[in-house]
Amino acid sequence: MIGTPTYRPWLDPELAAQDRVAALLAEMTLAELVGQLHQSANVDPAVADDADLLAAGGIGSTLLASGALAGTERDDGVDRARVDALQRAAIGSSRLGLPLLIARDVIHGHRTIAPIPLGLAASMDEALVTDVARRAALEASADGITWTFAPMVDLVEDARWGRVAESFGESPLLTARLGTAAVRGFQESGRLAACAKHLVGYGLSRGGRDYAGVDVGEITLRNQHLRPFRAAVDAGVHTVMAAFSDVDGIPMHSHRRLLREVLKQEWGFGGVVVADWNGIGELVEHGVAADLREAARLAIEAGVDVDMVSGAYRAHLAELVESGEVARDLVVDAARRVLLLKVRLGLLDPGCPALPGGAPAVGSRALGVDGELAARAAAAALVVLEDDGVLPIAPPAAGTTLLLTGAFARETTGLLGTWVLDGDGAEVVPIGPALRSGLAALAGQEAAGRLVIDTGGFADVTLRHAREASTTIALVGEHPWRSGEDSAVSDVGLPPGQLEVLRALAAVAERLVVVVLTGRPLALGEVLVVADAVVLAFHPGTEGGAVIADVLLGRTRATGHLPMSLPRSAGHLPISHAERPSGRPLPASATGRGRYVDSPATPLLPFGAGSSGLAYGPLRLVDGSEVPVDGGTAHLALTVTNAGGTDVREPVLVMMRDEVAEVTRPMRELVDLAVVDVPAGTSREVTFALPAAAFGYHGRDLRHRVDPGRIVLTAGWGRPDASSVEIDLV
Amino acid sequence: MIGTPTYRPWLDPELAAQDRVAALLAEMTLAELVGQLHQSANVDPAVADDADLLAAGGIGSTLLASGALAGTERDDGVDRARVDALQRAAIGSSRLGLPLLIARDVIHGHRTIAPIPLGLAASMDEALVTDVARRAALEASADGITWTFAPMVDLVEDARWGRVAESFGESPLLTARLGTAAVRGFQESGRLAACAKHLVGYGLSRGGRDYAGVDVGEITLRNQHLRPFRAAVDAGVHTVMAAFSDVDGIPMHSHRRLLREVLKQEWGFGGVVVADWNGIGELVEHGVAADLREAARLAIEAGVDVDMVSGAYRAHLAELVESGEVARDLVVDAARRVLLLKVRLGLLDPGCPALPGGAPAVGSRALGVDGELAARAAAAALVVLEDDGVLPIAPPAAGTTLLLTGAFARETTGLLGTWVLDGDGAEVVPIGPALRSGLAALAGQEAAGRLVIDTGGFADVTLRHAREASTTIALVGEHPWRSGEDSAVSDVGLPPGQLEVLRALAAVAERLVVVVLTGRPLALGEVLVVADAVVLAFHPGTEGGAVIADVLLGRTRATGHLPMSLPRSAGHLPISHAERPSGRPLPASATGRGRYVDSPATPLLPFGAGSSGLAYGPLRLVDGSEVPVDGGTAHLALTVTNAGGTDVREPVLVMMRDEVAEVTRPMRELVDLAVVDVPAGTSREVTFALPAAAFGYHGRDLRHRVDPGRIVLTAGWGRPDASSVEIDLV
Repeated sequence: MIGTPTYRPWLDPELAAQDRVAALLAEMTLAELVGQLHQSANVDPAVADDADLLAAGGIGSTLLASGALAGTERDDGVDRARVDALQRAAIGSSRLGLPLLIARDVIHGHRTIAPIPLGLAASMDEALVTDVARRAALEASADGITWTFAPMVDLVEDARWGRVAESFGESPLLTARLGTAAVRGFQESGRLAACAKHLVGYGLSRGGRDYAGVDVGEITLRNQHLRPFRAAVDAGVHTVMAAFSDVDGIPMHSHRRLLREVLKQEWGFGGVVVADWNGIGELVEHGVAADLREAARLAIEAGVDVDMVSGAYRAHLAELVESGEVARDLVVDAARRVLLLKVRLGLLDPGCPALPGGAPAVGSRALGVDGELAARAAAAALVVLEDDGVLPIAPPAAGTTLLLTGAFARETTGLLGTWVLDGDGAEVVPIGPALRSGLAALAGQEAAGRLVIDTGGFADVTLRHAREASTTIALVGEHPWRSGEDSAVSDVGLPPGQLEVLRALAAVAERLVVVVLTGRPLALGEVLVVADAVVLAFHPGTEGGAVIADVLLGRTRATGHLPMSLPRSAGHLPISHAERPSGRPLPASATGRGRYVDSPATPLLPFGAGSSGLAYGPLRLVDGSEVPVDGGTAHLALTVTNAGGTDVREPVLVMMRDEVAEVTRPMRELVDLAVVDVPAGTSREVTFALPAAAFGYHGRDLRHRVDPGRIVLTAGWGRPDASSVEIDLV
Repeated sequence: MIGTPTYRPWLDPELAAQDRVAALLAEMTLAELVGQLHQSANVDPAVADDADLLAAGGIGSTLLASGALAGTERDDGVDRARVDALQRAAIGSSRLGLPLLIARDVIHGHRTIAPIPLGLAASMDEALVTDVARRAALEASADGITWTFAPMVDLVEDARWGRVAESFGESPLLTARLGTAAVRGFQESGRLAACAKHLVGYGLSRGGRDYAGVDVGEITLRNQHLRPFRAAVDAGVHTVMAAFSDVDGIPMHSHRRLLREVLKQEWGFGGVVVADWNGIGELVEHGVAADLREAARLAIEAGVDVDMVSGAYRAHLAELVESGEVARDLVVDAARRVLLLKVRLGLLDPGCPALPGGAPAVGSRALGVDGELAARAAAAALVVLEDDGVLPIAPPAAGTTLLLTGAFARETTGLLGTWVLDGDGAEVVPIGPALRSGLAALAGQEAAGRLVIDTGGFADVTLRHAREASTTIALVGEHPWRSGEDSAVSDVGLPPGQLEVLRALAAVAERLVVVVLTGRPLALGEVLVVADAVVLAFHPGTEGGAVIADVLLGRTRATGHLPMSLPRSAGHLPISHAERPSGRPLPASATGRGRYVDSPATPLLPFGAGSSGLAYGPLRLVDGSEVPVDGGTAHLALTVTNAGGTDVREPVLVMMRDEVAEVTRPMRELVDLAVVDVPAGTSREVTFALPAAAFGYHGRDLRHRVDPGRIVLTAGWGRPDASSVEIDLV
């Protein structure tokens, strides 16, 4: 059928997208419709089965991945020539000549690797997140990739869960803002589809155990966990992924209520709902389907459009339609969504850059790494948790040494973090050499003291070095292999042995600076006690080594703030800044009657913590305190002052408290934030315009409502210069 | 009005209870109706305000308690003479002459103190629980008490929560069975009302923090947490208490759906729903009511009949009715329930034993303590977690010593556990003296080796003793003050210092036997490693000291089994034997891909663990494998053999697994159990008759359903001689 001169209206870019898709649907057989819903992993036209299926129009998309745990198991990297060969086969061998959607987990960069999403969230900076996603899209598109399974917008309040690394933390608002910022960046060029995942509740996995059951009700889902998804849908995200977990006993891949009724019908989501890896097949293991056939029926009825790798749709969907057990309309609607996505991505247009001949054959490698972006992102992700006046580190004077110790000292790929399939460790400057270069660049210091780099294999040797050094910098934390999917921990402390070494170092070191690299919030209570300064770096990405060195030496400012509360121990989880008050709220002191008799029940350090050096003036009401619930806006302002010598980019957070509502509302909740640049020695007025709807919530009937009544708004929560104003919704 | 000769039909025992109540309601003013709904603490007719309110008919019941945390704060004890004086005032001073309901927290005994409920649950023995409750009722009734706030039937899967001590553990079935057994025992005489508490979800308090918010959906509530309440209602429990917590953002004291629609309407509960302490007032702190007036409206509409101590009803309910904001019918219905309870308890009958003149003025003290019952209960609650062949302990040979160490060695009230208001520590024989007596009673041993009793204040001295001793018995665990209400811990290990001492003892002791006294499951992993035998005693009650001594010496057999899984650490919580499977279930080995990368995700020891010494034969189907879903019954049998020399009372557990259902069903779940006596050297056939409904569950539409399909049934789960059969529901 190749080269048939027949007019194919779906290939005509002059027609409206819906009409192109309608023309295609009218042409397609049931098997071809089902084919659009089947996603295989690593489809290879050189393999006979794949070639046959491609020729039959039986594959709609492919996922290039190393397996079910792609975030922790690297593959050989994507190769544009192979992608082109695949698309040639898909287009050339099938009756309708449809290209595939080529999917890959491009999470926090493709070749230019930014900090892990949890680190990016520490920047709280939408513009930065958009920049990172835009660059990732550019690089991925050059490799022929048209679909990424990002951003993850699951809220996480339990640091045990490994996928917290891939999240934007615990705040619904921050996650919604950064999630949509990522969607905008990924989708801006029109060549890549983003995917808001995982709808919904996955971050509540019981005990932090990946995939485990989720207990939550729909009011809480709507007021917290669904909010970032709604925001992503409103921002035009092309696809949404279902969560592995069950919610109240209903596996999300069979959750008709949330996928079809809420997401598609109530919210009007017109894009594609994709299964997670074998998520439809796993309905059998969940125990809600006797076999793959029943799993296919449950999933299509629930609203899952694309079957990722389980083969359930491919094996059973046509027969289920023919037997009358599944309405054909469900299959047509799912195929319509997939085809519309292909049209919208330009995959059916002549000269599409994602298709053979449409982009440099060398792929993303020709683009190089955007080091400026990676460095900017890494600096924005670093959080100074403590500094007892030892930062920046003075270069060692003549005759003295500076010690850098820890297994991360010479690590490269370990700085990239989880979910890096194409980033190249060879392009990473390790922290040790970066620190050496940084010291050399500080004029006049070259000939002074010596930098000792020690990977810590012999702690006894390290201690000897530390006793000699003017400053000891200890790099501690998690290897990325302990974070990411299916990497839950029961103990959220440092990995075994590290704290003991830190204690020993503290006993001999003149100054001890600790840099924590991690995929999750760790319980760092004793680290804060023994160290003179603590910098939380997450897994910082391609330029992380250089940026950590620069921050330690004062050449760059770390400007991150905690996107998630640091727990005191795993026994304090889950925890959040936004706890519901209960009938016996915690007293302000947080220790008396503090709900744990053996420990405060508060976080070790709360959401938003991080040193900025700015002074906050009082929060002010600009237009009076009365705000009509129907269309009113609260206008607020405060002045922030940078008395220091370095320019600062600061997220200024506004918390709200609704004291009386139909359902319990959090003790405090982030309601707005503004990221402002405050040059050294200047003041800036920061203004907020908060529409009344921002103070609303979903009530007992699940509907969104804005009640008349008082709202307390606080800027600088947790800081000594915090201040509040009250508004009256009328 | 005293002594009015008018015929008062509500005082006429010849009339039907409903008619008596109707006659009363017809007579009552709105203020008197509201009065029945007001419960004050420690009403005292010698206090003017109380006397005035009594005279006005403004108090329906009183709670004799030391405060909001009565379980951890003792008072002076109840006194029959004061109760009588109170009832005289209530009856004599008011227009209608109605006595009060006199409530008190009689939880695991009144003067005869049984083990804490979690310990009683280890017996898994309904008959024992009924015996304990019956005795408690007898003693409490003698003191004029007519209402106890027990049993607590909250399911608990998180050992951090302090109130786990008051629970029957993690199994819905076991809790339902033991909860109804307690209700039967408390209510058998007809003189005391029991109270199933706390409806619902309180055991899911976030992070184990008492009172904190609860996230759960209604399917899970119905399949787990509501089941024991339904069973209690079906068993005729007179009252139900609302939980402090919110569920999905709706505080239970305002939860119309669960209290009014499910409990009262769907289940037909005709008894009294009582608030928890200030639970209505706390609707303000929860943030769902602006003030106490609104709290009163929310609570009465939700179905809370009696306002415990907040005063909201007393202050506002009449005015809310008069203003038309609350329907008068709601108040009448609530009052009807209270009055019906008073009639049913005989409080309006002439010569009621609970009223002045109706019982010995000396009250419960005249009854003495039922030592046999307390001892039987204590032995049934003890769980042998490990015995490497050192139990029973051999009396020390001449010239050697036996060491008993630990702060519990001379403790009396500390053995009684939380929620003991009237039990007398003076009636408790401490473990040390009991062990001395036990040794003396072993004929011929009096003159042999010596018992050293050491409370462990100087660990260095203890170690010297241990080095000399043939056996060291270490008593460790929690003081009751660390368990009970508002006594959550973030670390479920032994209290500080104890494990370090055990390690040191293990290094020098010839044999180390550890007895753990506790109000919650503790993480005892390392204790099991260092000890030669470990006995879990919970807080064992009045005869606990004697029974522990007898068990150690082999004079009594410990026959308890874990009613709750022991966690490996707080970082493993919540945990249960009945986890939902997820789409990626844990492999049988429990370590590979076990969801925590740093630890197995399984319990340290699971629900049901405990040494019995019995051998289990294979589980058999008696009547074939097909069971009609509509009215069928599965008949099972197995033979258990006691080859040992001691009689054994054993709970034989049957677990079920429904492999395919409409919602995810637990990997295993207790579906039946039989407590059987197996004399030494005999075999017993144990039979089970399981109605098809036992295999049902609440589906997506929340209705109970029994599906056709396969059910796997297992006896002896977790034992090497476990066996399974399959049945087919048809």
